[in-house]
Amino acid sequence: MVAPLRADARAHWKPLDPGYAERVRTSFARQGAMRLIGAVLADVQPGYCAITLVPRPEVAQQHGYVHAGIVGAIIDSAGGYAGFTLFPANASVLTVEFKLNLLAPANGERLVAEGFVLKPGRTLAITRGEVHAEHEGKRTLVAVMQQTLMVMHGKTDG
Amino acid sequence: MVAPLRADARAHWKPLDPGYAERVRTSFARQGAMRLIGAVLADVQPGYCAITLVPRPEVAQQHGYVHAGIVGAIIDSAGGYAGFTLFPANASVLTVEFKLNLLAPANGERLVAEGFVLKPGRTLAITRGEVHAEHEGKRTLVAVMQQTLMVMHGKTDG
Amino acid sequence: MVAPLRADARAHWKPLDPGYAERVRTSFARQGAMRLIGAVLADVQPGYCAITLVPRPEVAQQHGYVHAGIVGAIIDSAGGYAGFTLFPANASVLTVEFKLNLLAPANGERLVAEGFVLKPGRTLAITRGEVHAEHEGKRTLVAVMQQTLMVMHGKTDG
Amino acid sequence: MVAPLRADARAHWKPLDPGYAERVRTSFARQGAMRLIGAVLADVQPGYCAITLVPRPEVAQQHGYVHAGIVGAIIDSAGGYAGFTLFPANASVLTVEFKLNLLAPANGERLVAEGFVLKPGRTLAITRGEVHAEHEGKRTLVAVMQQTLMVMHGKTDG
Repeated sequence: MVAPLRADARAHWKPLDPGYAERVRTSFARQGAMRLIGAVLADVQPGYCAITLVPRPEVAQQHGYVHAGIVGAIIDSAGGYAGFTLFPANASVLTVEFKLNLLAPANGERLVAEGFVLKPGRTLAITRGEVHAEHEGKRTLVAVMQQTLMVMHGKTDG
Repeated sequence: MVAPLRADARAHWKPLDPGYAERVRTSFARQGAMRLIGAVLADVQPGYCAITLVPRPEVAQQHGYVHAGIVGAIIDSAGGYAGFTLFPANASVLTVEFKLNLLAPANGERLVAEGFVLKPGRTLAITRGEVHAEHEGKRTLVAVMQQTLMVMHGKTDG
Repeated sequence: MVAPLRADARAHWKPLDPGYAERVRTSFARQGAMRLIGAVLADVQPGYCAITLVPRPEVAQQHGYVHAGIVGAIIDSAGGYAGFTLFPANASVLTVEFKLNLLAPANGERLVAEGFVLKPGRTLAITRGEVHAEHEGKRTLVAVMQQTLMVMHGKTDG
Repeated sequence: MVAPLRADARAHWKPLDPGYAERVRTSFARQGAMRLIGAVLADVQPGYCAITLVPRPEVAQQHGYVHAGIVGAIIDSAGGYAGFTLFPANASVLTVEFKLNLLAPANGERLVAEGFVLKPGRTLAITRGEVHAEHEGKRTLVAVMQQTLMVMHGKTDG
């Protein structure tokens, strides 16, 4: 194998703002959409964010699995907040685009959506995401995402 | 200009199942996620589906605009049902992947998400989508999407 | 149908730089990759660019059709130059990301890749693209694309 | 952190066809496009493929970096052949779609494009890809990709 290094190895990012985690929590609490669907902010680290969701009929599509769009919503937020942890204190985050592949039915006891920063930048940040379904002690990869974020300088998040 | 024909010109698709519209309406009614976020099935035509949503705090992100993931959810459903209108009666629809670009803040009186079939197929169908925001009689393009669907033969939707 | 307006209707963009077409032609001539694969700049209009390619074994994949990556290369350039027509004179263009769906085998007498600006902006521009194959007087849609471009201010293209 | 398992950890896939590597090499040799751009098949493992390219003016865009479309071409092939290693002997591979994010200028002594299978399937396979640039003993991540492949049963590759 020619390239032992993996982009997905967790990089050790240095946040510009030591209050990054509090800033993410405050922002997440303002997202009515996350509250409506029952998403929970589970972890925040520099360049990383995890959001969980319990599958139930209110977030399902016609076959009873979690709706692809709802899977997209939690992984979009997880990616966005992963990026946001590395932004300066006076900047806000905007999703430019994301792309989601669905790999397996999203059900089980809990979905875990994780966003990882691949490349932070002054204007743009690139992230990737994974959603796993937890069921009877097993984890299944149900979705993967690639995302572009914009750093909105001078626009506080609140 | 070398190519006057546009993919986005509405093609005149012939549905395989004359009951396609009823099939879409029944399936949409089973999507708990669409009900939860307040999405409305506004139109169904062969190879076309429109879903609307009224922006409000329950579907917002931190700045008060409709959450990118919720925009993704309605356009994913609109694209999926656009494809579904052309499926045989005994088949179901699954999103393989979708890609969403956000172009402008999603707010205003109403969002209109429209899915268009680009290419129906026996196994896969490809669609594109647009989301417009209506505000004071004006329409603004707020998002565009490309999507791949899978035709699940022999798996009725119910 | 709720939304008669189509994003794909050709908008009438006003270029900031009246020399936009010459700027595109000069930049295209510097792309060694376009020359290598035999791509031809066929048309440049404000917010629009068309690039053509004649299918032949040197640009084929294993079945003899034009390689998906080569289809991606011409539509990436077409989208990029469509955006570039609307940039200020002292700015350069960079592809942030693109997403390509392949709909049909890319062969025939000629491929026509067209890029259309959906949204120009100070920092980013969003485009879409279509690739048609021409064969015996017929046109077949073989690929569609969505793309994000970055405006590199103060970086002349040369 | 809630999910220690990474999708990008190299899974240990079992190929259906023990002659998978030879099948990939034969198919790659038939890709005129890879020969034209000077791409080299560097490694083939179950669910994995690496392709390298030496940056030079013939594959460049207007600023002298490797063209985004050429980066797309090598990572599309790497992902496609990663998937192909797990296909049955009498099946062929087709790219349904791919999405590419460019993270840094593609230059240096060599580009290494690696495709990884995320999910093999009977009809579809999902892969991800990374492109690194090697320069003076350092590796820089220059692009990431997500891709959907189709398994063409009963259609031999030759």
